Amino acid sequence: MSLFREIISGNRQSLAQCLTSIENEDDNYHFLSEIYGHTGNAHLIGITGSPGSGKSTILNSLVKLMRKNDDNMGILAIDPSSQFTKGAVLGDRIRMQDLLGDKGVYIRSMATRGALGGLSNAVAGSIDVLDAAGFDRIFVETSGVGQAEIDIAANSYTTIVVLLPGAGDSIQASKAGVLEIADIIVINKSDYSHASLTKSHLLEMLDIASHSHNIDNNSINSSKNIWSVPIVSTVATSGEGVDELADNVYSHYKYLCDTGELEVRRRNRIRYIYRLLLQKQLYTRLENILLEERSIQQLELLMQGKNDPYTAVEHLMKWFDTH
Amino acid sequence: MSLFREIISGNRQSLAQCLTSIENEDDNYHFLSEIYGHTGNAHLIGITGSPGSGKSTILNSLVKLMRKNDDNMGILAIDPSSQFTKGAVLGDRIRMQDLLGDKGVYIRSMATRGALGGLSNAVAGSIDVLDAAGFDRIFVETSGVGQAEIDIAANSYTTIVVLLPGAGDSIQASKAGVLEIADIIVINKSDYSHASLTKSHLLEMLDIASHSHNIDNNSINSSKNIWSVPIVSTVATSGEGVDELADNVYSHYKYLCDTGELEVRRRNRIRYIYRLLLQKQLYTRLENILLEERSIQQLELLMQGKNDPYTAVEHLMKWFDTH
Repeated sequence: MSLFREIISGNRQSLAQCLTSIENEDDNYHFLSEIYGHTGNAHLIGITGSPGSGKSTILNSLVKLMRKNDDNMGILAIDPSSQFTKGAVLGDRIRMQDLLGDKGVYIRSMATRGALGGLSNAVAGSIDVLDAAGFDRIFVETSGVGQAEIDIAANSYTTIVVLLPGAGDSIQASKAGVLEIADIIVINKSDYSHASLTKSHLLEMLDIASHSHNIDNNSINSSKNIWSVPIVSTVATSGEGVDELADNVYSHYKYLCDTGELEVRRRNRIRYIYRLLLQKQLYTRLENILLEERSIQQLELLMQGKNDPYTAVEHLMKWFDTH
Repeated sequence: MSLFREIISGNRQSLAQCLTSIENEDDNYHFLSEIYGHTGNAHLIGITGSPGSGKSTILNSLVKLMRKNDDNMGILAIDPSSQFTKGAVLGDRIRMQDLLGDKGVYIRSMATRGALGGLSNAVAGSIDVLDAAGFDRIFVETSGVGQAEIDIAANSYTTIVVLLPGAGDSIQASKAGVLEIADIIVINKSDYSHASLTKSHLLEMLDIASHSHNIDNNSINSSKNIWSVPIVSTVATSGEGVDELADNVYSHYKYLCDTGELEVRRRNRIRYIYRLLLQKQLYTRLENILLEERSIQQLELLMQGKNDPYTAVEHLMKWFDTH
């Protein structure tokens, strides 16, 4: 049986092998191209928030609750790299241990590599594999750090942003542009002081944002077609508010289907992947150029102060364009 | 007089014009190539930390204090973009108002653009312009968000990371890899509770990191040549601890000069800029490819589900390589 057949027949060992190969950036264009025709059925859900915000614990409760409808759930937990965080992947497993015995749930952790764009490609590919493997809902979880968040928004049809009470976390999130990608906002640890203040602060920021959006796009939406970002208060450790979060996930999916927005987001994701793959190809060429004898010579001249980088790159690209 | 001559003769209006042109990503390769030969004299200092950590206030006091040695100071304040933060640039000016009357200090704010890699190129170019304009020390300040931080470390000979007391900020910094770029760590608002706990926590993390560094590099350093990252406690609003920070900035520069590490970092910065410029050239080509009739057709087939992105990109690159 082919790897692809094994995966769609539910062989978890083959699935794990396949995801490892994608994570290692093996040459698997042919395989991904083969499974691509079997994707497009899953509801893709992103969940992001700063470290310590309780994302994993919320995800654990949310998936457990949503399993009552018998959907198969795939979870991709992405860990942006740092030499300090080797324990994070294990930590995710511990916080999601409620789900480990459930055969309808598949959890996969993924660490970041150094290569520019490497993770983005791996995340997109892994989602497609889980989709082809028949998971009904696929959750992608990451910490609120730069590129990983952009990837989550581009890959998700529903994006959940988890914040902590107090001004610090929400200001940081708004600075980093994270609020702009949220379809649902969760204030976790809402039993702490300042939680209600944070909520009204957020409502204000979202109001400003939605106004400027409408002006920018010059669009006239009928009120029925507008999704108003809900703010859900949770206490992840006790499970409080997770039912309300699940309801909002279902409502958002219904909104996406009813308004045609799902198709818009599906198309945006395809455009994003197409661009990502082109980028990767060009990066490979960049790496190759840097290894060329001609490039090494140019760099050496730069080091000796015998040329400037602007002229060096101009010369190199002229040579590249004619070869 | 040429723009370049005007800038090195101290014309601030010409300097501002030139920096605006770089920020707008005008085609100024020729100009940057011309000034490049006059760079390499300034001490480049990066300062980063999460929003609200007090970076600007510290920088204000630090520059004021260091001005007593009569060095000319250039400050580049970078604001990673978000539609919510249009007031940030003004805020920086307010926090640095002590410096506004001083003719030996030049402050420039820079906002992020959407273009991938656009800011990185603009930051590197602006530093070179300030360097050629004769500033002895150039400070680059940014909020702790993703790519901007990587740019700061690559552009600086001395990197200062500002943290707040309490576990949250330092864990976030270590997750994001920010601690790894620090030459000097500042714990600001050290009059708050938890400040001393934060310091011992950080010392522990730095100890783990330096051990793993030594193993990774397999290097045997004589103790004289090792820079041990100092942790300075400050209260930015009262100026407490800023003299100690200044002393550490001077010591680090002396360390860089004495050990030859300055030359290593200067070379790394050149390599980084060279790579950045090559990347930009390839991005221009990517944008051009995406506009090609052939690419638009491929994308349309993808949208209709008549092709998969992997095959589409493979075809497109084959065509690109032969044209």
